[in-house]
Amino acid sequence: MSLTESSPLKAAEAASISSRSLATLSVKARNDALTSIHNALSRERDKILQANALDLKAASKAAQDGSLSQAVLKRLDLGRAGKYDDMLKGILDVRELEDPVGRITLRTQLDDDLELTRVTCPIGVLLIIFEARPEVIANIASLAIKSGNAAILKGGKESTESFHAISSVISEALLHTKVPNAAIQLFETRDVVNQLLSMDQYIDLVIPRGSNELVRYIKDHTKIPVLGHADGLCAIYIHSDADADMAKKVILDSKCGYPAACNAVETLLVHDDALLSVLPTVAEAILQQGVSLRCDEKSKLILSTFLSPASTALLQSATEADYDTEFLDLVLAIKTIPAAPHSVDLAIAHINAHSSHHTDAILTSSRDVAEAFMAGVDSAGVYWNASTRIADGMRYGFGTEVGISTNKIHSRGPVGLEGLTIYKYLVKGKGQTAGEYGEGKKAWMHKQLPL
Amino acid sequence: MSLTESSPLKAAEAASISSRSLATLSVKARNDALTSIHNALSRERDKILQANALDLKAASKAAQDGSLSQAVLKRLDLGRAGKYDDMLKGILDVRELEDPVGRITLRTQLDDDLELTRVTCPIGVLLIIFEARPEVIANIASLAIKSGNAAILKGGKESTESFHAISSVISEALLHTKVPNAAIQLFETRDVVNQLLSMDQYIDLVIPRGSNELVRYIKDHTKIPVLGHADGLCAIYIHSDADADMAKKVILDSKCGYPAACNAVETLLVHDDALLSVLPTVAEAILQQGVSLRCDEKSKLILSTFLSPASTALLQSATEADYDTEFLDLVLAIKTIPAAPHSVDLAIAHINAHSSHHTDAILTSSRDVAEAFMAGVDSAGVYWNASTRIADGMRYGFGTEVGISTNKIHSRGPVGLEGLTIYKYLVKGKGQTAGEYGEGKKAWMHKQLPL
Repeated sequence: MSLTESSPLKAAEAASISSRSLATLSVKARNDALTSIHNALSRERDKILQANALDLKAASKAAQDGSLSQAVLKRLDLGRAGKYDDMLKGILDVRELEDPVGRITLRTQLDDDLELTRVTCPIGVLLIIFEARPEVIANIASLAIKSGNAAILKGGKESTESFHAISSVISEALLHTKVPNAAIQLFETRDVVNQLLSMDQYIDLVIPRGSNELVRYIKDHTKIPVLGHADGLCAIYIHSDADADMAKKVILDSKCGYPAACNAVETLLVHDDALLSVLPTVAEAILQQGVSLRCDEKSKLILSTFLSPASTALLQSATEADYDTEFLDLVLAIKTIPAAPHSVDLAIAHINAHSSHHTDAILTSSRDVAEAFMAGVDSAGVYWNASTRIADGMRYGFGTEVGISTNKIHSRGPVGLEGLTIYKYLVKGKGQTAGEYGEGKKAWMHKQLPL
Repeated sequence: MSLTESSPLKAAEAASISSRSLATLSVKARNDALTSIHNALSRERDKILQANALDLKAASKAAQDGSLSQAVLKRLDLGRAGKYDDMLKGILDVRELEDPVGRITLRTQLDDDLELTRVTCPIGVLLIIFEARPEVIANIASLAIKSGNAAILKGGKESTESFHAISSVISEALLHTKVPNAAIQLFETRDVVNQLLSMDQYIDLVIPRGSNELVRYIKDHTKIPVLGHADGLCAIYIHSDADADMAKKVILDSKCGYPAACNAVETLLVHDDALLSVLPTVAEAILQQGVSLRCDEKSKLILSTFLSPASTALLQSATEADYDTEFLDLVLAIKTIPAAPHSVDLAIAHINAHSSHHTDAILTSSRDVAEAFMAGVDSAGVYWNASTRIADGMRYGFGTEVGISTNKIHSRGPVGLEGLTIYKYLVKGKGQTAGEYGEGKKAWMHKQLPL
């Protein structure tokens, strides 16, 4: 790893060249590099925390001025209980994951002595642009090395000192490994971002980690594929036969567990029949948690007759825009789905038109209705009787995640190491040509072989 | 299918909406639609060939003017022996392929009564832009329907009458099926292309089929992912121990089998030791086929001493630009790779820097050298002792291909139906929440279940 002082063009070119040799390293060599990084970061904890303290000092001042949020300040702090250890453990966790490179996913005998093999391989060069969290640098460097990809990292300016310290420790640690130094490069200044985003000849994939604004800016300013999501507008549909207690439990978690998360629920669709049987229980519980409800006319009317006057006073009227808004806060839009022979189709149509295709759920006791919902909703995650907050790479068992993608190609939902690989086709022959095969000539064998 | 007269925006919106219901059709319903298209096109052969004759008449005139190439004229002709039948057979071939939709690729028990399933699904809306071949419309409509994707097709102006006829027949045929009519839409005029390329809210993937210029134009004018390749600059490296007869056979096929193909070889890298032992045999054979050789100094010198004076007179000197040129013609650039302990690494470095990452081959009798080459070359196809012309979906056993991709994400190499799908994660629970799990709480089970 090197804290880059060269031009973005030279850095990208060097990353591209080094990605070739990184791609051919054995899993042992890649894992050894992770061990080396882990040990070095463990050894240099004090030095890094001292650097982090400088960032924190500057950030505290900015927070007092009001030019930096308390949330960012909190994210910056590597000294918080358990955070540094989590960072260290994360490196070892990635090391222990199954090697995503070199997996054979197809083997076909094309003819005698002519075999086709499809084998997973690294993508090449990743550009990762992230904001305040300084531990991301260790996390991303680990993921990149494990998957055999070179990475160019651009951190947020608030954590310059921490990055500097972490990067110099990692850089030193990599010197004793087979990972080329130029394979992981770090930029600190914002002015290089647009240049990097233009280098589609060297950079294969951009992964932004940060605010919606960051992701949207990046998607709008590059031709390189971007893995991630700008929005997380998740919906839950309460069908007529939903269980009220289950609905209360799931929606409390989906809305209040971590309202700023991309997998928090923002829109509640309620079957007309559930307005009476389910919604009041749900509304009572989440109002107590301080959630503002933005209701359509019918749901507001019904809730008013059930809730206490104090609670009723908190109900707001929804505008159409509320159904297209990711609140990222203790706010929930509620919309009634008319009772009809196929109410679920109306809920599906609303979600396909308004959600961000991240994660959407149905609460119902009917398998048929749930299956129609899961088939019809076009989102990365479609859930039946479970909280949208389960959408997460750790929770899915991927060990770690690079991010959650709402793309329609390559990788969708929580992206683990698999999303950092592609494949190539290897053909091994004895001099066969295409011209030998075809009508009136030899026939292709096309026999599937065991993997 | 409808020959669209509405605005591109309305067409794309309609395609997007219809893609939702197409995505939920059973494989039987999708296959029935293919049968229906096949039968209708079979029945209406005369009508379509009459329309095609009008296109041919106009094109012949343009060819006489010199404003259209003979190659395009030939591609337009649906009446050529076997072509119409091939088109019909292609539809049935696609119908018989394994259903790419609904395949379960991951099943994980997250907890008791909480299961995660990853299931393949259509991508959504495809925009396919193609040039002269009128049969592509039937081919692409079949692939789209089979994979559950809506498609907007934009054909070339040379085949307007043929498209018109084919599209009205397919449209009529689909009326009696469950495939929504708006799922396949056709545009004839070029002025809509830029508008369609801007509709990333409705269109999920662009597939261009045509010239390098077409593909490059499209890649430069859209934010929608593009599946395909602009260039097919393939290289073959002749190692020191390559067999001369095998090299002759493979290179004759790779260069002369179909020089305008993307998988034809354009650059020959020759190990210094093979200049004497292999290259003369190869050169003699391909010169006889009319191939122009653009040689570096050393290969030219050596060939001059071996070839007849008449052949020697045909040798040209290569410029650096020749190693970056896709000739698409009977021209081959030759470059010497110095004899060194790791000559293969020099060949790999040349290929990674100059090839278009399509398909590159090594000819060698050494397994170790071949394996180094296959690991080090970053291309969609990497071959050992086989012709680059084998890079093709039919030859790989995919039944059909949408195109060959040199992208680094999603789908690489010949793209079959699998490349037209993505997946979604389904979670089925009993009301579980994210908040129940974690340190001091319930642990995730993460038990892999059989597929």
